[in-house]
Amino acid sequence: MKLRSTLYEELALEIEDMVARRVLLPGERLPSVRQQRARRGVSPSTVFQAYYLLEARGVIESRPRSGYYVALRAPSAAAAAPEPEASRPDGAPTSVDVSGLVFDVLDAARSRAIVPFGSAFPSPLLFPLERLARGMASGMRRLDPWSTVADLSPGNAELRRQIALRYQLDGVQVAAEDIVITNGALEALNLCLQAVARPGDTVLVESPAFYAALQALERMELKAVEVATHPRDGVDLDALAAALERHRPKACWLMTSFQNPLGSLMPPEKKRSLVALLAAHGVPLIEDDVYGELYFGHRRPTLAKRYDGEGLVMHCSSFSKCLAPGYRVGWAAPGRHARAVERLKLTTSLAAAMPSQLALAEYLGQGGYDRHLRQLRAALAGQQERMLAALAAHFPAGTRVTRPEGGYFLWVELPDGVDALALHQAALREGIGIAPGPMFSAKRAFRNCIRLNYGHPWEDSHAAAIATLGGLARAAVQAA
Amino acid sequence: MKLRSTLYEELALEIEDMVARRVLLPGERLPSVRQQRARRGVSPSTVFQAYYLLEARGVIESRPRSGYYVALRAPSAAAAAPEPEASRPDGAPTSVDVSGLVFDVLDAARSRAIVPFGSAFPSPLLFPLERLARGMASGMRRLDPWSTVADLSPGNAELRRQIALRYQLDGVQVAAEDIVITNGALEALNLCLQAVARPGDTVLVESPAFYAALQALERMELKAVEVATHPRDGVDLDALAAALERHRPKACWLMTSFQNPLGSLMPPEKKRSLVALLAAHGVPLIEDDVYGELYFGHRRPTLAKRYDGEGLVMHCSSFSKCLAPGYRVGWAAPGRHARAVERLKLTTSLAAAMPSQLALAEYLGQGGYDRHLRQLRAALAGQQERMLAALAAHFPAGTRVTRPEGGYFLWVELPDGVDALALHQAALREGIGIAPGPMFSAKRAFRNCIRLNYGHPWEDSHAAAIATLGGLARAAVQAA
Repeated sequence: MKLRSTLYEELALEIEDMVARRVLLPGERLPSVRQQRARRGVSPSTVFQAYYLLEARGVIESRPRSGYYVALRAPSAAAAAPEPEASRPDGAPTSVDVSGLVFDVLDAARSRAIVPFGSAFPSPLLFPLERLARGMASGMRRLDPWSTVADLSPGNAELRRQIALRYQLDGVQVAAEDIVITNGALEALNLCLQAVARPGDTVLVESPAFYAALQALERMELKAVEVATHPRDGVDLDALAAALERHRPKACWLMTSFQNPLGSLMPPEKKRSLVALLAAHGVPLIEDDVYGELYFGHRRPTLAKRYDGEGLVMHCSSFSKCLAPGYRVGWAAPGRHARAVERLKLTTSLAAAMPSQLALAEYLGQGGYDRHLRQLRAALAGQQERMLAALAAHFPAGTRVTRPEGGYFLWVELPDGVDALALHQAALREGIGIAPGPMFSAKRAFRNCIRLNYGHPWEDSHAAAIATLGGLARAAVQAA
Repeated sequence: MKLRSTLYEELALEIEDMVARRVLLPGERLPSVRQQRARRGVSPSTVFQAYYLLEARGVIESRPRSGYYVALRAPSAAAAAPEPEASRPDGAPTSVDVSGLVFDVLDAARSRAIVPFGSAFPSPLLFPLERLARGMASGMRRLDPWSTVADLSPGNAELRRQIALRYQLDGVQVAAEDIVITNGALEALNLCLQAVARPGDTVLVESPAFYAALQALERMELKAVEVATHPRDGVDLDALAAALERHRPKACWLMTSFQNPLGSLMPPEKKRSLVALLAAHGVPLIEDDVYGELYFGHRRPTLAKRYDGEGLVMHCSSFSKCLAPGYRVGWAAPGRHARAVERLKLTTSLAAAMPSQLALAEYLGQGGYDRHLRQLRAALAGQQERMLAALAAHFPAGTRVTRPEGGYFLWVELPDGVDALALHQAALREGIGIAPGPMFSAKRAFRNCIRLNYGHPWEDSHAAAIATLGGLARAAVQAA
């Protein structure tokens, strides 16, 4: 499966490169499927997949009954804004009080009429909901009634086996018995945190941090230390080492691949160093990896868990962002804390829903997951290009934007003086949701930053919304 | 529906009474359906339902192609053991450390080969799993993809409406907006507790208490004060009033109907007084009501929530024990703390599984729930009679047994000197699970008590297991 994926992706990359070097010009017709097949000896489906990917990325366009053409306004990396620099938090431990702000922002954007740039989710239209429902129906038909009580904890055996298999494909050895099925990744993360930290303890997080991590610290009365993080390769290990020495944290909660909101991806060697550093201090890593499958490159990013010789990496993920939104099935592979997490799960909410687990076990057993993921990644990559191009066209000079290699968030640093909370209010009045930077910091920093969600199929209304947002941002710059 | 239910139940009670007074003798043939119909003017289905109920209770037996006969060994209340007396805990606040014991006991009895008297669940064979699965399939077909992200919290609107309707039928006004759907009742209870108590606070519970309540206190580092409780009518209000004065608790966690493990049922007036007493102290009541639908009497027990004028009663329940085991759908109606609980739910595990919620909304909308409940209650009532009769026949003199009016647990007080933990080990060696008394107390009291589950269709192997258990108990008495 990897091999086939490589073939069409290589073809797509080659064509993309030709467009970038203007070997293929805007509006020019691409070779037909038959021509590609004759010239390169690849199957029609490989060509179709490559063209589909390029279309999703906005590089080419199909014209009915005519063929594929280079897009007239093919997105160009050169036109995009520069990247933000690494964050520089002050590093002092902070009690967290950000939950109110987070809820206010999320509540304000609940209406379906709001342009969903502030959403935490990709579009549900990108998921195989019908196939999942069929999987559920057939799983339920074969249901052994006793499994409704006997398999409550730590979860459906077949699903845990499937998850262990995927770990193995990613080069990580996790026994099915050491996987705890949870009510989504959020519960997995919370249980892992509870297993290793008590009220008053300190926990290291990225800067900016995923707001749900901050909310978890707030709820458990833990202190946050935010550590400098680079938008491209993640948390700064020197800063992390200093924080470990100074604050003796009980845990480190990081998103090692496509961090929310930065989209940063720690390279394999950096992940290895991270795990070694934490092991030297005996500090558990809570590895939040819910976006790891949403990569735009050639292969899945390595897991920090892969380098875990001590059982100190508590790897958490779910199917909510990449397959089955609303099913609420996640898991933890908590290493040496597996039993503790399993027991916390039992006393917190007993078990995850059995029909959801059966549906996923059934779906994974049928083997369409990787195909779905390839389509999803292609769609997200294309949507990112569209949004980057729109931002370049409409946002004020001095704006910096990430260009993550996966996930569905852009982190936008606006010129100094722009107040993201005010921009959020102004955008809402125009029917546009955004996620203002202060949501992502215990100290409510990142006042001039916003997170934008490109996880929704690109529509004209989205282009218009980016233009409107850009106008609001330009006005804010002038007023500042 | 209530009216029809009354008709057949009245007929059943009348016949039961005739059997008890030996107007109808063991082995005697009952009037045929046609005769009953002619004599009393009731419909055949009323007669069938009455006979079905009596059969489930073990009062009558059907013989193929012949009719219904008074059972040869009809259970007789007179033969049963006396009830235990009210508990008398010392009332001092205790840190809780019972979770390890609870897990050891539950783990030991996980095998399906073990006779499930120690189980916390009724038999899954008593539930309409196929109809639920069909409800799920049709709910999923009509699924609006956006609902998978938009309806995450506080839960599916139609399901909340259905639950609000049932509250209304029970005489309680709860708005659908004030219901938070959770991952089973256990999560609802935990979230309610978190909303009102912080580490170090004191919480009042029954004595004996449901062990998951004790585990919740242990996990949250709360102190337990166990309050005297009578096996028939529940917590002692004088003892409760004294504990409120003395310990200034932050919450009171009680099971007002068919308490686990006692099966006690607080009468309506007592519930009213309870709510008034707590309101006078401004202390929230966390009302765990998961067994309320499993009544054997004429109507559903009143909810303490019904008397709640202050929004201080946090009513929690689920579908796990009465309709859909494994679906993990429960809810809280947390009164004035509804928003706080909703937000805790969001940061703890985001939402309950959407397919499970859809299946239940669909099922409830179709209207077979009450019929299913009537069958379930009749089955449980019959199983209770069988187990009571077996206990009376085999357990040592001096044994006391509850006879709850609902639920599926018996609480058995063995003669002094019998060690329930040792009995548990001995029973396990014989392939029999029981729940030893110390699981139900922060102080590990109730050393000579056990909880027995009668929620499984009665089998010959169950009768043999009770005989074996009785033998072990008699041996323990002699050794003591």
